[in-house]
Amino acid sequence: MSLLDRIQTPEMIKSLSLDELTQLAGELRQRIIAAVSANGGHLASNLGVVELTLALHYVYDFGPYPAGPDRLLFDVGHQCYSHKLLTGRAGDFAQLRKKGHVGGFPLPDESPYDLFAVGHAGTAISTAVGMARGDETLGRKNRVVALVGDASIVNGLSFEGLNNAGTLKRQLLVILNDNGMSISQPQGALAHYLERVRVSSTYDEAKKIAQTIVGKLPQTVGNTIEQVWQFTRETLKHSVWPGQIFETLGMKYMGPINGHDLPALIEQLSEIKDHDHPVLLHVRTIKGCGYEHAANEPTRFHSPASFKEINNDTEDCNCRIEIKSSARNWTTAFAQACIDLARKNDKIVALNAGMPDGTGLSKFEKVFPDRYYDTGICESHMVAMAAGMAKAGLRPVVAVYSTFVQRAFDQIWQEVVLNHQPVIFALDRAGYVGDDGAVHHGFCDLSFLRAMPEMVLMAPSDEAELNRCLTLAASLDTASSLRYPRDAVPATNFEDRIEDAALRASAARPWVLGQSRTLRTGEDATIIAYGAMLTNAFEAAELLQQNDGLSVGIVDARFCKPVDGAMLGRVLLAGHAVLTVEDHALTNGFGSAVLEYAQAHRLPTQHITRLGMPDRLVQHATRAQQLAEVGLDALGIARSLRDAIRVVKVSAVSKPKVSSVFTV
Amino acid sequence: MSLLDRIQTPEMIKSLSLDELTQLAGELRQRIIAAVSANGGHLASNLGVVELTLALHYVYDFGPYPAGPDRLLFDVGHQCYSHKLLTGRAGDFAQLRKKGHVGGFPLPDESPYDLFAVGHAGTAISTAVGMARGDETLGRKNRVVALVGDASIVNGLSFEGLNNAGTLKRQLLVILNDNGMSISQPQGALAHYLERVRVSSTYDEAKKIAQTIVGKLPQTVGNTIEQVWQFTRETLKHSVWPGQIFETLGMKYMGPINGHDLPALIEQLSEIKDHDHPVLLHVRTIKGCGYEHAANEPTRFHSPASFKEINNDTEDCNCRIEIKSSARNWTTAFAQACIDLARKNDKIVALNAGMPDGTGLSKFEKVFPDRYYDTGICESHMVAMAAGMAKAGLRPVVAVYSTFVQRAFDQIWQEVVLNHQPVIFALDRAGYVGDDGAVHHGFCDLSFLRAMPEMVLMAPSDEAELNRCLTLAASLDTASSLRYPRDAVPATNFEDRIEDAALRASAARPWVLGQSRTLRTGEDATIIAYGAMLTNAFEAAELLQQNDGLSVGIVDARFCKPVDGAMLGRVLLAGHAVLTVEDHALTNGFGSAVLEYAQAHRLPTQHITRLGMPDRLVQHATRAQQLAEVGLDALGIARSLRDAIRVVKVSAVSKPKVSSVFTV
Repeated sequence: MSLLDRIQTPEMIKSLSLDELTQLAGELRQRIIAAVSANGGHLASNLGVVELTLALHYVYDFGPYPAGPDRLLFDVGHQCYSHKLLTGRAGDFAQLRKKGHVGGFPLPDESPYDLFAVGHAGTAISTAVGMARGDETLGRKNRVVALVGDASIVNGLSFEGLNNAGTLKRQLLVILNDNGMSISQPQGALAHYLERVRVSSTYDEAKKIAQTIVGKLPQTVGNTIEQVWQFTRETLKHSVWPGQIFETLGMKYMGPINGHDLPALIEQLSEIKDHDHPVLLHVRTIKGCGYEHAANEPTRFHSPASFKEINNDTEDCNCRIEIKSSARNWTTAFAQACIDLARKNDKIVALNAGMPDGTGLSKFEKVFPDRYYDTGICESHMVAMAAGMAKAGLRPVVAVYSTFVQRAFDQIWQEVVLNHQPVIFALDRAGYVGDDGAVHHGFCDLSFLRAMPEMVLMAPSDEAELNRCLTLAASLDTASSLRYPRDAVPATNFEDRIEDAALRASAARPWVLGQSRTLRTGEDATIIAYGAMLTNAFEAAELLQQNDGLSVGIVDARFCKPVDGAMLGRVLLAGHAVLTVEDHALTNGFGSAVLEYAQAHRLPTQHITRLGMPDRLVQHATRAQQLAEVGLDALGIARSLRDAIRVVKVSAVSKPKVSSVFTV
Repeated sequence: MSLLDRIQTPEMIKSLSLDELTQLAGELRQRIIAAVSANGGHLASNLGVVELTLALHYVYDFGPYPAGPDRLLFDVGHQCYSHKLLTGRAGDFAQLRKKGHVGGFPLPDESPYDLFAVGHAGTAISTAVGMARGDETLGRKNRVVALVGDASIVNGLSFEGLNNAGTLKRQLLVILNDNGMSISQPQGALAHYLERVRVSSTYDEAKKIAQTIVGKLPQTVGNTIEQVWQFTRETLKHSVWPGQIFETLGMKYMGPINGHDLPALIEQLSEIKDHDHPVLLHVRTIKGCGYEHAANEPTRFHSPASFKEINNDTEDCNCRIEIKSSARNWTTAFAQACIDLARKNDKIVALNAGMPDGTGLSKFEKVFPDRYYDTGICESHMVAMAAGMAKAGLRPVVAVYSTFVQRAFDQIWQEVVLNHQPVIFALDRAGYVGDDGAVHHGFCDLSFLRAMPEMVLMAPSDEAELNRCLTLAASLDTASSLRYPRDAVPATNFEDRIEDAALRASAARPWVLGQSRTLRTGEDATIIAYGAMLTNAFEAAELLQQNDGLSVGIVDARFCKPVDGAMLGRVLLAGHAVLTVEDHALTNGFGSAVLEYAQAHRLPTQHITRLGMPDRLVQHATRAQQLAEVGLDALGIARSLRDAIRVVKVSAVSKPKVSSVFTV
């Protein structure tokens, strides 16, 4: 039995020797590599904090919530695997990210050792300050530790957290886990500053400065006080002074220290454990440490899909690997479409917030390095900057996950929409995202974007449509947004699957604002699908035709705003069942836009059935499993459609009269 | 004719002498005081930047957009009045903030000299970086200046902007307008740092440090290099080093300089005008400068309502004033309700983000100083911190304007909702806000909050209801939100206006989750009002009863989520006209929740008319004017109701059959 399998609670590691702890570190790495290579997950970042996590649990008492007593808050959660393995979840860890098993992010629903479910960056310092203030108000003395990566520390919310943490008059430890890599290359001036602190040994730098001062002192001592001051100030000003930014914010700065030196970590943490003021401990770690491939290519191994092991030598963890290639996906298709658009339109620039690979824009950067911007994990800044670029006359395409665009809600409102700037938002990971789980689902972009005047909302259903959609977006005077899922693009574009020749020709024409396309007409029902859900809707219609002999029309909505009113008039007055299908929340989604239009134009709504994401949290699983769970797979859609057709026929409600007074 | 009235474009001030500029500064102050005392507006902040604005326009060429050539970006816009007066708007300025006249914030629709419509904090550095990058990409050499106050600089987005600005290889000037006051008292560690820089003359501080070093040198020169270094480092570390935080972020720091010394400002700006790297110029100004009352009480005079002049001596601008007292408003009622709640429940704590007076919580602070938190303008941090406090066992009440809560969207989602933390959001300024205009309307809180699982959405209609609502919120296990407008609370609670005794008794009972209250039943129509709109809806029903003899039922919805399904079943099946009334966007608002419920339960929707905020920008005016403009005043509601009743009767649609299969 391995050491790790004997650890049921983190308390048990306190009695281990240093040799045993070192052995445990090796076992943790093996388990992490084994689980991620099989199931995908965050690899390099988790390998970087093995010793740090051990040292934290060795020194502090991070017991189960609510008792604690100590509190460990993870930022983003890309570094929680060792913590999970040490807190009773080692047995299930081989099933990492699989449905019903241990999830890839901290999950309080999974374990009382996890305090906050996270996955978005920059929040841990703030929640730590909140818990510290809460514990204090309630008369408790719990110690609070926030673990933050260098990718998160540049986020504005981390700054707000530090600025407010600096006013605390009690213990609070922020650990800056600095691997110098962020998710991809670090961005911004602070990253350069940290890089200077990291690469030059502070001690050497200090010696060099001291030598300069001492060398010059004989000439300066005799001079005026002002001259001495000026000289010292100028000398120091351009030197690297570790921690000056954090000390300005009221934190006591310590470090940088080596994050893989277990005894040193334990010693340092023990020493500062009970400091009664906020401290920032700067720890240098190596992303992918202990696994050659991940250490050499930390970006590629930040969050790989499952990969095939060619030669797994777990002894030294240096097996050769090859990341599985997957089918062409929406991200790749978007990157290509964006490149094609930029070739035709020299005003196009592309922006992302610390996600060059996740958004596909790393491909764009290779072709147009001067028209590409990565702001680091600063979604708010990215969007406000895009508004400024648009004001200057450019056409910015902002590529961002649906779940992260909400971090720039206020800038989309004020800088983009209120100021009529034609920024294009390309929302990746719309709908269920699969194994990343609830924290990453793109479920509410339509809900807030549709409330904004002038915003155009679109969703393409295949790669040909994606290109047409972007072409239209680039021609608009207003802001626009398109959404697509973390999924494969249809292997065949839908226009090549349309039987009716006239519909086929029409379906392949360029997009016109507010116009849907019809793939097929039907007598028994019509499905109105929004975006990528067309794939399952199309299959459902075919199932019903083949198995039940039902004739089902299919509309590809294309637009949620402005919604195609002419089409809705036709479909809703046909008197048969109408099904709206989307991978967005049913609350304030595409179907709601259909209802609002129908009500405003006094069109009947009683034949409408809306399918979408229900009003509850859906946990990690594959995207296909998640869609099936909520009835958005082809079988589920077919089931709902069959029911809807039956209800309409049974209820035999006559086609309602439409008031001529209010019809527009 | 005054000097100011001769200035038609800012170019004209370049030919003025220093004496004339000083005279112009006096005239600007007079105009600002005159306009604000008559109409209300941002007084103290605008008085603080008179000389700075003059110096900026004297040195730079901020011509009309798009030509420019130079770009001036205001952060928040609480300091744009002098700029407006110098750019062709002096003639209309006496009508400041009145409908159809000059607005209180920068407005590109009003003048090409205004680049961005703003009103929310922290965005100017980012839009400036965007314009700088855009101009550069398009081969232009425009200079870019961002004017940012010390209240905004602590916002995370400002930090993101600085961090990204610091990587620019071209001109960019950020002016930190530091009056040491924010909107109210400054918060956070950075504010303390700036305060130290501000109050102690840097020169004196430098001398003191140099003296210390020189005094100790004889003993240290002979010692080891490490000792010299340690000594110097420790000595300097705890000193005030102006600008170290900004220089870490890659900005060249200059200052602090006196923001009321016009010649010095002109000299400094001229000198750095063409620096080809990003610069932060720290300018010290006095909030309310030149107007004794405002300078003495800058918080009270930050944004006063119009005030009565007792003795207006415009010669020295030191008239005695008395701020008009207004009727009891929702903000005051909320503050009292929150205090009452905190008296009964010792877990209640109250938070705001730099708005102690705007949210009313300054009253709470007086009673419960230890249970009160002001984070500065850091809405994201405030919400994440509140989640941490809730996790620790407290019951945080977050008081924030509806338009600003969207700045914490992602933290409401991840930290609060996903983590099941029962934080209470009290959304002030919901609906139209009046003279602050489009940038401050609270139009979309329901749109994004309703998409979040478990979130309870409520709106009280009078002060008694506000108390019941908060009492219920504090008893819930989930997050909740209540909204109320910038308006007076009804002088009489509605329960005292109900004629039917049974309904009256029922209406005054404590709130039960998801249950509306009925004020009156009616045969011809039912109004379902959400929140404060009940006042106008009630009046509309009375108008129709008196003038048209129509019998109109009135429901006070109380809940948008969960919406009262039993009530909707009764009302929608009654077969008469149903009017939903809300001061939220019609898109994804309360009425949409009604439609969604009706559709999901196969209830008829064709008798529904939804009234709310239309899908367009509504400019500054009084709130009453804005409500009238969109038909949400009593007359407008009565008009819509009369039409709806007529249509239902004319169309003579029989009560539709309801399928028993799907009715729940």
